[in-house]
Amino acid sequence: MTLNRTPIHVNDAVSKVMERVKSTGTETVSYDQSYNRVLAKDLTATSDVPLFTKSAMDGFAVHSSSTAGASGDNRVPFKVVEEVPAGSSSDYILKDNEAFRIMTGAEIPESADTVVMFEQTKEIDGGFTIRREFKPYENIAQQGEECRTGDVIVEKGTMINPGTVATLATFGYSEVEVFKQPAVGVLSTGTELLEVEDGLERGKIRNSNTPMILSQLSRMGIEGKHYKLETDDFDTLYTRIKAMLDEVDVIITTGGVSVGDYDLLPKIYDALGAEVLFNKVAMRPGSVTTVSALDDKLLFGLSGNPSACYSGFELFTRPALNLMQEAALPFAPFVDAVLDEDFTKANPFTRFIRAELFFKAGKIYARPSGFNKSNAVTSIAKSNGVIVLPGGTRGFESGDAVKVMLTDVTTGTDSFGVE
Amino acid sequence: MTLNRTPIHVNDAVSKVMERVKSTGTETVSYDQSYNRVLAKDLTATSDVPLFTKSAMDGFAVHSSSTAGASGDNRVPFKVVEEVPAGSSSDYILKDNEAFRIMTGAEIPESADTVVMFEQTKEIDGGFTIRREFKPYENIAQQGEECRTGDVIVEKGTMINPGTVATLATFGYSEVEVFKQPAVGVLSTGTELLEVEDGLERGKIRNSNTPMILSQLSRMGIEGKHYKLETDDFDTLYTRIKAMLDEVDVIITTGGVSVGDYDLLPKIYDALGAEVLFNKVAMRPGSVTTVSALDDKLLFGLSGNPSACYSGFELFTRPALNLMQEAALPFAPFVDAVLDEDFTKANPFTRFIRAELFFKAGKIYARPSGFNKSNAVTSIAKSNGVIVLPGGTRGFESGDAVKVMLTDVTTGTDSFGVE
Repeated sequence: MTLNRTPIHVNDAVSKVMERVKSTGTETVSYDQSYNRVLAKDLTATSDVPLFTKSAMDGFAVHSSSTAGASGDNRVPFKVVEEVPAGSSSDYILKDNEAFRIMTGAEIPESADTVVMFEQTKEIDGGFTIRREFKPYENIAQQGEECRTGDVIVEKGTMINPGTVATLATFGYSEVEVFKQPAVGVLSTGTELLEVEDGLERGKIRNSNTPMILSQLSRMGIEGKHYKLETDDFDTLYTRIKAMLDEVDVIITTGGVSVGDYDLLPKIYDALGAEVLFNKVAMRPGSVTTVSALDDKLLFGLSGNPSACYSGFELFTRPALNLMQEAALPFAPFVDAVLDEDFTKANPFTRFIRAELFFKAGKIYARPSGFNKSNAVTSIAKSNGVIVLPGGTRGFESGDAVKVMLTDVTTGTDSFGVE
Repeated sequence: MTLNRTPIHVNDAVSKVMERVKSTGTETVSYDQSYNRVLAKDLTATSDVPLFTKSAMDGFAVHSSSTAGASGDNRVPFKVVEEVPAGSSSDYILKDNEAFRIMTGAEIPESADTVVMFEQTKEIDGGFTIRREFKPYENIAQQGEECRTGDVIVEKGTMINPGTVATLATFGYSEVEVFKQPAVGVLSTGTELLEVEDGLERGKIRNSNTPMILSQLSRMGIEGKHYKLETDDFDTLYTRIKAMLDEVDVIITTGGVSVGDYDLLPKIYDALGAEVLFNKVAMRPGSVTTVSALDDKLLFGLSGNPSACYSGFELFTRPALNLMQEAALPFAPFVDAVLDEDFTKANPFTRFIRAELFFKAGKIYARPSGFNKSNAVTSIAKSNGVIVLPGGTRGFESGDAVKVMLTDVTTGTDSFGVE
């Protein structure tokens, strides 16, 4: 039992979790089911792009040597000998001052090396004239100029987004190797918890943390497993968590991590022989957030306070789940925002405040939740980000510059660090 | 047939689409399946929060009148008559200078009106003394101070996020009325298209737009319907689109909207009797993007160019699909970003350039895709946003401030407008 807890900095807490992450290993999925998964191998080009040297414009393919000396005073004439539509080419060997009429996307015949656009010509009987010299490769897309067969297009560890799916299709990958998604079990503890269907009773509240976390997992494309707890005593909870450890890679619990008599999680970590990575973080809310490791499994003991539970998941659990899939950018981005409400209470600790973000004229605004009492419930219901307020002796005012963690975005970053 | 096309401003094009949107109507889903859906009714509080007036601290509940006259020189003594643990209350009527010992969250008994924290007392035999007067309601959370039964907590039209799911649970909504997601069919046209499994042939490319759009729909939580096209002539395409109109609310096609001989969509809209809302937009790429309406259905004719197809979906289709669900914030947010690469070509038209966004020190950076030829394929594969460059006579340099459309984020805004 650890009643004397030493708070550690949130950056250190995040590091301790990330250091203990084990990869989930890989599996193969259909390319059209790969959205939001993490690439387990570099995606390499299976062909040159473009596949062949082709015209980038509608016009005439000629050899640049035939354009020598052309000027406004000395228009050089060309005779059109053949037409090359898109999807076609020609083996004809151009003689001096001969030209192919060519369409965008058509292959440049071997005896031509440059393309004159229609609007750069003047029509004459059987052909056209030009008024300037053309260098090789004008208006031409050369074979392999975008990429060569074997080039790495997207690195292992990249989260697959719609553009990546398009690229898989382009290169003919009907299947793709990705990292397995972790199996995650969610269990809320507390004798005061009711199910959503239950009528309210004095001293009890409905369990909102479990469905919230399951939705936070959905946002990552992960289907979490919901565990129900009938009674909330040491033996029941111990047996349940033992069983969960056989079924999932990660256990998220909410509640039961304080130091009160009814806070069972510390005793359970002890009985399981789990290594407590930390049980006190120098932050508000959620200072009692506890993360433990047992063999390859991680146990996230999130606070029962809904706001702390939300940000605890985003701060610790989400990047760990990303890193289990070897994501190169496992962390949520922190961006500059404008505080939209006074927040006068000072606090010596770094605060992570669930907030409603909104966008106006290119700026991101953040309205804190849960502190202005009159809209605490409302703000929680709409929260789509977390405001980060550095600890200190002063409060903050509407209009102040703050950092916010974007939680509704699927793009990540490679590092975590708050002041 | 409309060979003479008049370009309209992108803002007007977006407005024309949004004006033609019809609501999909509502359905009821389980609260734990409601993530990413749009609320069809205001979410109202089914109880006061807090449900009852309770102690916000561990301490002693007393009547404020008994504290009158207390000071450092005149400590007032109290006798503890009963203990009130969390989840409990008491019917005992306090006499003068009597107190309940009370825990955080416990109901304040009717005969008390304020709470003295443990640390504000000095213990004496059978009770404690205090050194200052207490006003009513100190250290107390009053019934309904966060919200009252019937208060609107989240408005109709709000996209349900994890915090909203938590709120549904809190108020006992095991089911929730949401707007139906539109049924969306996706069909790519073009004789040059191969399936992902096919080997490459000269003049052909694999169809990457369909899986890209299906992933863009997945990002919205919508499962699109993939239509395959065997041959690409007028009769086949007409019959296919006629059949799709019976099965879906929205048809997205890619390709076939230019003015060439093989661009069949304009003829098909004509034959169907669909009203063409616009067929030319003053933007690059994707100026040929065409949107039509037929009865309650919308037909999005996106460009076959992958970059134009991507941004065409984000600009026109996504907000329309959101508005069909009566979302109050249907548009993707535009935020300030820093251009991370020179972009020297000027263009008189507004440009929407698929881009890779990344985050550093609170700023959003944007790397354009498809223009720096050496990484065109790579950038497309990683694109997670769209750079908006106003039309004009100059190019842009690395470090310039630009606006970007966040496409990887689920939070929206209420209006669309570019310069």
